Amino acid sequence: MNSYINDQIEVFKERNQNRGRLLVSCPDQPGIVSTISKFLFSHNANIIESSQYSTNPEGGTFFIRIEFECPNLKDKAKEMEIQFAEIASAFSMDWNLTHVYNVKKAAIFVSKELHCLLELLWEWQSGDLMADIALVISNHEDARSVVESLDIPFYYIPANKDIREQVEEKQLQLLEEHDIDLIVLARYMQILTPKFVAANPKKIINIHHSFLPAFIGARPYERAYERGVKLIGATSHYVTNELDEGPIIEQDISRVDHRDHVDSLKKSGRSIERSVLARAVKWHLEDRIIVHQNKTIVF
Amino acid sequence: MNSYINDQIEVFKERNQNRGRLLVSCPDQPGIVSTISKFLFSHNANIIESSQYSTNPEGGTFFIRIEFECPNLKDKAKEMEIQFAEIASAFSMDWNLTHVYNVKKAAIFVSKELHCLLELLWEWQSGDLMADIALVISNHEDARSVVESLDIPFYYIPANKDIREQVEEKQLQLLEEHDIDLIVLARYMQILTPKFVAANPKKIINIHHSFLPAFIGARPYERAYERGVKLIGATSHYVTNELDEGPIIEQDISRVDHRDHVDSLKKSGRSIERSVLARAVKWHLEDRIIVHQNKTIVF
Amino acid sequence: MNSYINDQIEVFKERNQNRGRLLVSCPDQPGIVSTISKFLFSHNANIIESSQYSTNPEGGTFFIRIEFECPNLKDKAKEMEIQFAEIASAFSMDWNLTHVYNVKKAAIFVSKELHCLLELLWEWQSGDLMADIALVISNHEDARSVVESLDIPFYYIPANKDIREQVEEKQLQLLEEHDIDLIVLARYMQILTPKFVAANPKKIINIHHSFLPAFIGARPYERAYERGVKLIGATSHYVTNELDEGPIIEQDISRVDHRDHVDSLKKSGRSIERSVLARAVKWHLEDRIIVHQNKTIVF
Amino acid sequence: MNSYINDQIEVFKERNQNRGRLLVSCPDQPGIVSTISKFLFSHNANIIESSQYSTNPEGGTFFIRIEFECPNLKDKAKEMEIQFAEIASAFSMDWNLTHVYNVKKAAIFVSKELHCLLELLWEWQSGDLMADIALVISNHEDARSVVESLDIPFYYIPANKDIREQVEEKQLQLLEEHDIDLIVLARYMQILTPKFVAANPKKIINIHHSFLPAFIGARPYERAYERGVKLIGATSHYVTNELDEGPIIEQDISRVDHRDHVDSLKKSGRSIERSVLARAVKWHLEDRIIVHQNKTIVF
Repeated sequence: MNSYINDQIEVFKERNQNRGRLLVSCPDQPGIVSTISKFLFSHNANIIESSQYSTNPEGGTFFIRIEFECPNLKDKAKEMEIQFAEIASAFSMDWNLTHVYNVKKAAIFVSKELHCLLELLWEWQSGDLMADIALVISNHEDARSVVESLDIPFYYIPANKDIREQVEEKQLQLLEEHDIDLIVLARYMQILTPKFVAANPKKIINIHHSFLPAFIGARPYERAYERGVKLIGATSHYVTNELDEGPIIEQDISRVDHRDHVDSLKKSGRSIERSVLARAVKWHLEDRIIVHQNKTIVF
Repeated sequence: MNSYINDQIEVFKERNQNRGRLLVSCPDQPGIVSTISKFLFSHNANIIESSQYSTNPEGGTFFIRIEFECPNLKDKAKEMEIQFAEIASAFSMDWNLTHVYNVKKAAIFVSKELHCLLELLWEWQSGDLMADIALVISNHEDARSVVESLDIPFYYIPANKDIREQVEEKQLQLLEEHDIDLIVLARYMQILTPKFVAANPKKIINIHHSFLPAFIGARPYERAYERGVKLIGATSHYVTNELDEGPIIEQDISRVDHRDHVDSLKKSGRSIERSVLARAVKWHLEDRIIVHQNKTIVF
Repeated sequence: MNSYINDQIEVFKERNQNRGRLLVSCPDQPGIVSTISKFLFSHNANIIESSQYSTNPEGGTFFIRIEFECPNLKDKAKEMEIQFAEIASAFSMDWNLTHVYNVKKAAIFVSKELHCLLELLWEWQSGDLMADIALVISNHEDARSVVESLDIPFYYIPANKDIREQVEEKQLQLLEEHDIDLIVLARYMQILTPKFVAANPKKIINIHHSFLPAFIGARPYERAYERGVKLIGATSHYVTNELDEGPIIEQDISRVDHRDHVDSLKKSGRSIERSVLARAVKWHLEDRIIVHQNKTIVF
Repeated sequence: MNSYINDQIEVFKERNQNRGRLLVSCPDQPGIVSTISKFLFSHNANIIESSQYSTNPEGGTFFIRIEFECPNLKDKAKEMEIQFAEIASAFSMDWNLTHVYNVKKAAIFVSKELHCLLELLWEWQSGDLMADIALVISNHEDARSVVESLDIPFYYIPANKDIREQVEEKQLQLLEEHDIDLIVLARYMQILTPKFVAANPKKIINIHHSFLPAFIGARPYERAYERGVKLIGATSHYVTNELDEGPIIEQDISRVDHRDHVDSLKKSGRSIERSVLARAVKWHLEDRIIVHQNKTIVF
């Protein structure tokens, strides 16, 4: 990683050494907020931001995200985890306590179309996406020069459906070596096997170039053109084994009209794909997303 | 029709007694614009607004819409039509020469949900939709009082799939009696038969409560909720015999999030449905739409 | 009030007899959330929705809005208020505990342009604005028939700058008689005196027909046209004694282009004015807005 | 210029060797379209796209933009210009006949904030901005490496208000040497002198980081924050001698809320600035903009 970005990350870590985030989902019942906030207060943690949601106050599922500032968090994190585990057990919570200091490690997969990759790199350089981009994997060489110019390791792994298993084996090994928290498919045009997906639950974010559930699958802009729609869109979602059916994180659209042909739809679309994917990645890095069944809560 | 709106229409007719519109589609070739503009100039017509489009300059289809001001149009319209027919024949044109003075006659079909009807009536009263709303037909009584308060005839025709033919017979008879140019399905929750559709080609505008082609058919908001989308939308289109597959005129969306349940999606959706349908109807009334295959050119 | 809307309000009150809302602002410090949630839990209240914000975790101002469900709230509300006053005192809180059962009473002021009034009435009839619209006051007769058709009292009070004081005296008397919580200026084209504003702090919502701070004052559409902007907008804000300088609640815009003349800007603008004002009024009725200095926190 | 982009430009020129554009403004009168289209037809030109607008059909100003395909345009262009000059004289036209083959030459001015420059370079590399970016001029060194990596000459010219004249002299000399058609101020934070502006009429495009006319001048995000607006925006405009008062080409906005502090307003704003400036530059390069008084017609 080059030194300028390295410096930025160090500044960020320094600033966030006492910053923590708590994500919880559990069956709704009175007393959850009271219990959690009492716990945090007992550790002198000051709540900076808090959002909550309940599918149904009577017998539904409750979700909360709390960002807090806690003196000496680095030393106390372990102990807090142990204590909170007891609360979690009493309320049957799924939970996650993260220390913002531990910047997430991301891998980006890309093919020949580079606009989504470039947007992520651009926002990363600007300090808007706080991650350690540990590597970029591609089945083409197109992205190598820009990636390596930023001192990010680039791995060229040719791929096609006949060698899918060998390819994924190499990829999984690289992900493990780099201890990756998040895989971003930035227009990576290969289908992943169930094995790969199962190995990375809720950790793979894809960008699909249509407003799902319209135009699932291949060639969405061509099909949008044929249907004569007046809007085109893009959708970022977590990857599951059903093609383009995973939990949607973010969507957006752009107006088009009869003058647009397939090429100009693609041009407009690139702009939306870039911003939709970047927002989804940002929210994931900030621990803003909880997956519940096949939906996302985005706090 | 009450006198205030009647007055508005009279003022509009007065202002537009020399205003004409020419819509043309034909195989593209050099000389079309030159020929048409020479024709208009020979009648002392001044071009006020002109838009054109070609699917492909080499061998595609050419479309043009011209709005013009022509002294004594009322007296000359017939003669111009006869002359233009010759040009049209030479260029194999589909064409339409309308005199804005002849305000279009519209029928609105509605069921129990009144928001789209109310928006149309509201914009009509404000002078933003210039039509003669000749009648409202409904399979429920809910709309009667508001419709009759505006001195528009209201016809209650109960409907269900078992009596579809008798119902449509009555409807077709009313449409004929009132010499209707445009039928607006403002959330009319009955399916029309191919016979009814065939009798009114390119004359029926529907509003569907999703961004097509997503959520074709029934219960789109419920299905949007289940899929966890982050946008909901509405689509207005001309009705053909394929359900929700007709040429799209206009679409729009609104952002939603995990807090939205089906009811709040419906509430947000009503706002979009209202404006999307109103825009489509307005463009139709202003002769801005050309249907080409299964798409619309909206000038 | 006509019986249909009356029924709706009764259903709403029935459903919300145990629903309360707590709004708090105070200097930030650790322990606020913990203390409040413990208080609510001690009354068996279940937190349904909670949002908070701090201008600056170190020494800033903290804001929170909590919506909760509390068994027998009607009987307990008084006691809870007394108890909470002690907490509030310890943390130097500005606070407000409202019982949703007590539907707010609103007065609407209007002049000759009715679109904002009609939108409010329309959303109110649809059940989207839960208020008791106790009266409409106008300096013109235009709105009388639509208002009275909904069984809302209509008061015609001619106004001009020479008789401002007498006019406002009558208005203030009516507001007091009806025990009004909220005054909506739905394109009421008269300036209010400092005395009137002072009598109704944070209770008057205005709609201004531009995206403030652009085009403060009169004739914003004319000035937008002259400047050649590519967007027009509307702004709803609380009224203070500085013209169009009060805390902004909501803004929105619409694209325009060179083809738009002043009239079409006004037409497009009406649509934005309607929705922007309706959203602001809705948020106020739902106790979602806290005014802090010259800004709003909208939860 | 590096070879990949060079190749793209060559392909573009090849494809557009017969493509011309005609822009006209003149007093409105009947016969303009007829005369122009007859002229084009006489040269076997096929009209591909045509847009027109009149401020007022009776005695206003008429504007038209025609894009056409004309066999052997390269050889005929000179002759066509001479012939059209006669028509132009008869109708008192301001006009411009451009040959798309002659790709426009652009200079970009930038200071320390690089997001607008990077967006332009990115769209340029993608083939979405068809220009010959002949040089980048900056009063800082920050942009050098990215600019030079694309084989674009980079000129570092330190600037401050005391040496403005010497600085501009150097700049004007460079612009002349490179025969520049368009100057883009991509967040160039120096004020230009009337002399510089006069030397480049309707050729300098600036991006201002607010929705003008709100927040003219310095520190717009800081002032937006202080005013508590719910929208922030950006405006691209031609530069005149009145600061931020030149003809507006494009504007857009983004929603913000009470949680946004100045830094996050700036981050959101960067996204809008990028796309607003890129659209304006694209339209200029495609000869879509006519400046009329202090407004733009954008076809």
